[in-house]
Amino acid sequence: MRAAVVGGSGFTGGELCRLVDGHPDFELVQATSREYENKTVGHAHPNLRHLDLRFSDPADLESVDVLFAATPHGVSMQHIDAFQDAADTVVDLSADFRLPEASAYDEYYDGHDRPELLADAEYALPELNRDNLPGATLIAAGGCNATASILGLLPLFEADILSGDERVVIDVKVGSSEGGASGGKAASHAERSGVVRPYAPTGHRHEAEISEYLGIDVSFTVHAVDMIRGASATCHVFPDSPVSKGDLWGAYRGSYEDEPFVRLASGGGGVYRYPEPKAVAGSNFAEVGFELDAANKRLVVFSAIDNMMKGSAGQAVHAANIAYGLDETAGLEHTGLHPVGAP
Amino acid sequence: MRAAVVGGSGFTGGELCRLVDGHPDFELVQATSREYENKTVGHAHPNLRHLDLRFSDPADLESVDVLFAATPHGVSMQHIDAFQDAADTVVDLSADFRLPEASAYDEYYDGHDRPELLADAEYALPELNRDNLPGATLIAAGGCNATASILGLLPLFEADILSGDERVVIDVKVGSSEGGASGGKAASHAERSGVVRPYAPTGHRHEAEISEYLGIDVSFTVHAVDMIRGASATCHVFPDSPVSKGDLWGAYRGSYEDEPFVRLASGGGGVYRYPEPKAVAGSNFAEVGFELDAANKRLVVFSAIDNMMKGSAGQAVHAANIAYGLDETAGLEHTGLHPVGAP
Amino acid sequence: MRAAVVGGSGFTGGELCRLVDGHPDFELVQATSREYENKTVGHAHPNLRHLDLRFSDPADLESVDVLFAATPHGVSMQHIDAFQDAADTVVDLSADFRLPEASAYDEYYDGHDRPELLADAEYALPELNRDNLPGATLIAAGGCNATASILGLLPLFEADILSGDERVVIDVKVGSSEGGASGGKAASHAERSGVVRPYAPTGHRHEAEISEYLGIDVSFTVHAVDMIRGASATCHVFPDSPVSKGDLWGAYRGSYEDEPFVRLASGGGGVYRYPEPKAVAGSNFAEVGFELDAANKRLVVFSAIDNMMKGSAGQAVHAANIAYGLDETAGLEHTGLHPVGAP
Amino acid sequence: MRAAVVGGSGFTGGELCRLVDGHPDFELVQATSREYENKTVGHAHPNLRHLDLRFSDPADLESVDVLFAATPHGVSMQHIDAFQDAADTVVDLSADFRLPEASAYDEYYDGHDRPELLADAEYALPELNRDNLPGATLIAAGGCNATASILGLLPLFEADILSGDERVVIDVKVGSSEGGASGGKAASHAERSGVVRPYAPTGHRHEAEISEYLGIDVSFTVHAVDMIRGASATCHVFPDSPVSKGDLWGAYRGSYEDEPFVRLASGGGGVYRYPEPKAVAGSNFAEVGFELDAANKRLVVFSAIDNMMKGSAGQAVHAANIAYGLDETAGLEHTGLHPVGAP
Repeated sequence: MRAAVVGGSGFTGGELCRLVDGHPDFELVQATSREYENKTVGHAHPNLRHLDLRFSDPADLESVDVLFAATPHGVSMQHIDAFQDAADTVVDLSADFRLPEASAYDEYYDGHDRPELLADAEYALPELNRDNLPGATLIAAGGCNATASILGLLPLFEADILSGDERVVIDVKVGSSEGGASGGKAASHAERSGVVRPYAPTGHRHEAEISEYLGIDVSFTVHAVDMIRGASATCHVFPDSPVSKGDLWGAYRGSYEDEPFVRLASGGGGVYRYPEPKAVAGSNFAEVGFELDAANKRLVVFSAIDNMMKGSAGQAVHAANIAYGLDETAGLEHTGLHPVGAP
Repeated sequence: MRAAVVGGSGFTGGELCRLVDGHPDFELVQATSREYENKTVGHAHPNLRHLDLRFSDPADLESVDVLFAATPHGVSMQHIDAFQDAADTVVDLSADFRLPEASAYDEYYDGHDRPELLADAEYALPELNRDNLPGATLIAAGGCNATASILGLLPLFEADILSGDERVVIDVKVGSSEGGASGGKAASHAERSGVVRPYAPTGHRHEAEISEYLGIDVSFTVHAVDMIRGASATCHVFPDSPVSKGDLWGAYRGSYEDEPFVRLASGGGGVYRYPEPKAVAGSNFAEVGFELDAANKRLVVFSAIDNMMKGSAGQAVHAANIAYGLDETAGLEHTGLHPVGAP
Repeated sequence: MRAAVVGGSGFTGGELCRLVDGHPDFELVQATSREYENKTVGHAHPNLRHLDLRFSDPADLESVDVLFAATPHGVSMQHIDAFQDAADTVVDLSADFRLPEASAYDEYYDGHDRPELLADAEYALPELNRDNLPGATLIAAGGCNATASILGLLPLFEADILSGDERVVIDVKVGSSEGGASGGKAASHAERSGVVRPYAPTGHRHEAEISEYLGIDVSFTVHAVDMIRGASATCHVFPDSPVSKGDLWGAYRGSYEDEPFVRLASGGGGVYRYPEPKAVAGSNFAEVGFELDAANKRLVVFSAIDNMMKGSAGQAVHAANIAYGLDETAGLEHTGLHPVGAP
Repeated sequence: MRAAVVGGSGFTGGELCRLVDGHPDFELVQATSREYENKTVGHAHPNLRHLDLRFSDPADLESVDVLFAATPHGVSMQHIDAFQDAADTVVDLSADFRLPEASAYDEYYDGHDRPELLADAEYALPELNRDNLPGATLIAAGGCNATASILGLLPLFEADILSGDERVVIDVKVGSSEGGASGGKAASHAERSGVVRPYAPTGHRHEAEISEYLGIDVSFTVHAVDMIRGASATCHVFPDSPVSKGDLWGAYRGSYEDEPFVRLASGGGGVYRYPEPKAVAGSNFAEVGFELDAANKRLVVFSAIDNMMKGSAGQAVHAANIAYGLDETAGLEHTGLHPVGAP
């Protein structure tokens, strides 16, 4: 199948180029970039220097089966007609089609230009709503921090340990790739290295996704830490009724034992005892684990993903695989590395 | 005044050697280390290569005015008689004399050998209990994560915004120096770089200090992140009554405006808008700030320190300065650097 | 084909497990580890937590087609008979069979127990001696720093720009994974982060490989820098006769244009203008580039690899592919990531 | 004495503000910044948040004793009259007055506007030319990479081990602070972390300083590595005559034993055996060491500094101290930290 990547010179776009190029069923026929038009893909993404493909103007879209849009929030809603003219299936990685209600865009974003399309879009977090994806033609890949949070909490809802009225604090740590490729003073190496920087103390946009898809209000705070890829969500949960370790293992195994991209990691031996972004970096895996704090009637849930993969490009390809009835793991087999850096 | 550092080859011991050597009123007459006996201080601490002092056996303590003990938990309680024979004032940086009740040592540590001395010790977090320190002869410097947490929450108690019955979640991020100089697989650069690693999901020992000195139960979780020095505590607080930004500024200014080592940082401009370990690295400053999340009736408090300074060696010297009636900032004037690394 | 990894819990062993598990023609039937016997492979290598395989005792080798030995220097020479009894083809990743002369082992290592086997072994740096590998039964994969250096300089010899009498200074920068998984004080995160540390100022063992396979004496110095994977060799070369940029492009294209794992990068645009370990991290690619310093009659050659891949495990699999007549890139298709960390 | 910092919002300017503020004999009366006019110094430099000083317009210079100019290359030569009108002594940290010959500016920079002033300026690398500094009114602080290189090689000239005709390769590794505070894509954390990036393969401007002040042509290459502060110069030297370790110790001790800011580190024990930027980070120390490679008739010299201190702001204050006959170490007593990050 023919595939195109719109917004190919950004970090997420580069990851999509890599995944589509290595996919057994997709052929990368176009990658667009205004800034790097006519330059090779490798100019922006050195890991792809061996690719024989040049960026083209996004105004000249090729006809393809699937178009992946890796553009900033607000762009896809403007160009959605062109995208849908060019492709049978559009997988959008921005927030533009993630929420079903236009009012949420008024509250968390700058409104929405095409609210009538929101009902047509399928949110893609396959562990949550896989059944809606086969045959979908407009897919909105879930956001990175929302994905990490939802994957951590979902089994608690599926097993009725949480009902939606409880208090949940989500303390997220993210890497610098979430800030994108455009640079800036705060993103400079000298300022950004080694930080624990509160960058979204309150009111983060991903609250809207979590609230929408789990049906619970969350207290959400995001910190920038010194890694490049990775999002780690620590969810401090206070269930109304006591819960045992056995209940928790039952819940998490029940939700995830057949999932190809979720691994449980809860207090085993070795250096990596709980979920860590390093353990999944470069892969489409999510890791989820938990611990009980009986003294405080608290449950601590850890969830870790690579924000560029399970949190965006990998999730998008996963969704496209399901939409077309392909093997879910096609093109997503890379397992990550050990040891690995920042990651 | 003559000063000695017991346990001088560890990270905290090295920081004490540096501070005492640069202190206008103290003379560093002895630094002990079994492992490095007869080697220069610079052998263990390259920043002190210019110092003309060799480590000596801790069994041969010199007579001094003040002895700083930077030994692992459990050591000071065994050797406290020798320490007190050698010195008029003992400043212990371990947990051995921080808690007033022996029962807390049974719960959080491996019990206590000399419970009769606990009542004689003064806990040293000067912003909390400065008045108890002048003339003290046994001082227990507060722990790093407890210090960061207490400094963040203290004004809320002093201004009666919190009473002690509220729910508080403290999500702490720490650097690798907290693990000490001894190395090990999990501490190796290849495994430890770039992590967000839950290392104390529940039951961390510093809960005991926070609970003891603030009178509140806290839900406490610690993550290792990629920095070397630094502890950052994010406190998610749910007050019973609504609180305004003005209330908060009043509370924090009221508690800290005359404090020489506390800076407020709450949403100003520039790259460093909230407290960050990088902004205080190498200094004895703590930074404290806050943000309101009205939607969730939540208050988020950020607190950042250098765990080697305000969280241990700097706090110890600060306490000794007060104990002896010296200028509180003597020997602690270094302001930290910008830009700076990990930090 | 059945494959085993001996020494599977080390960093290189883990990389081999990953590569063999993902290889279309190999089946990973055994991974040995004394330290982690009966534990899962994921216990040591968190990226492989999904693998259903436990480490076994190296004394109980399974019968396989190919055995990869990722043991410390000196181990393979002791166990080579057992390895060859168990496998048709042994690919050794240590230095034990890299050099043809026993005297070199006396000079650079601790001698050799089985010098009679040295003549049977094929050194595996496919770009140098691909023709010797088909059908080989004892293969010695080239060392990481030697591989980077040889790949940088080889075209200069193949194009007769260097004859072997010239002065060559090689200044190498390496990551912490070269030190292995065993930890230790100097390898601890607190000591190892952010370093530029001369760790082999003179007399590095890889001098022997470079000298043996290029026929030139080199002045070789290695620095540890803050990355985990990666080796970067900067070769300062002083040719006897003037050389032009055109000569150099001719030489490097001539040597490498058909090589599947070598990319040229010499002063193009973008952020990554010359070879960098980050651009190849996680992949089996090497990048090579150069610049002329006419004022000093100097040629500067840059060469970058991932020491865990092109510098060890990837090179070993590449060699096995050639030995068995498989597609050279089988199992080695991962292209690396962008952006990526330490790397 | 009254002091001003022109260009106070850059990295070097911030370091000057810190040093002048903490100096026993200087009073910081002005810091200028166009970009941050009327904002506090702490807005740009979070380590100085406690300072009660706001940036002012560089067009309104106060009358001071000493003016430190931390402006980009080319600015000081334009404003030198204004600087000299405002201050008795101008210490310029740019390259504008480092070289005595205007022709060198034509070759390595964009020419020079005020060549008639070059003869009035004193180059400030105190270990090289301390005697010229007392009473100097226009001082040009040496460049970071040149300082590291010259300090490494100077004893070899002073002891007649080098004459100036030998071959010298200098391979320098630098941190991200050398790139300044302005950011940009290549400087972004995601792209810059974990690099070994050749950024000045040939023709670096500091060649001119080294050549001018040591009288030798050098082959000079600079790599960016993952640290923030720090410059490490590895000098590969090929003396014409054999040299012994004793000769070298004699040379280096002879040159540096009375220097307050130079420490020798050559193969001692512990983790930090040779000069490392980490060991001097935050301090004005330089570390110098060496090793002999008899097999290649090579001498390897290592030199490490903090580029923000001994490589710029610290060197400038040191020079001002000498110019005014103050204690050379006044305001420069901070010894650096252990352990420390990037550094």
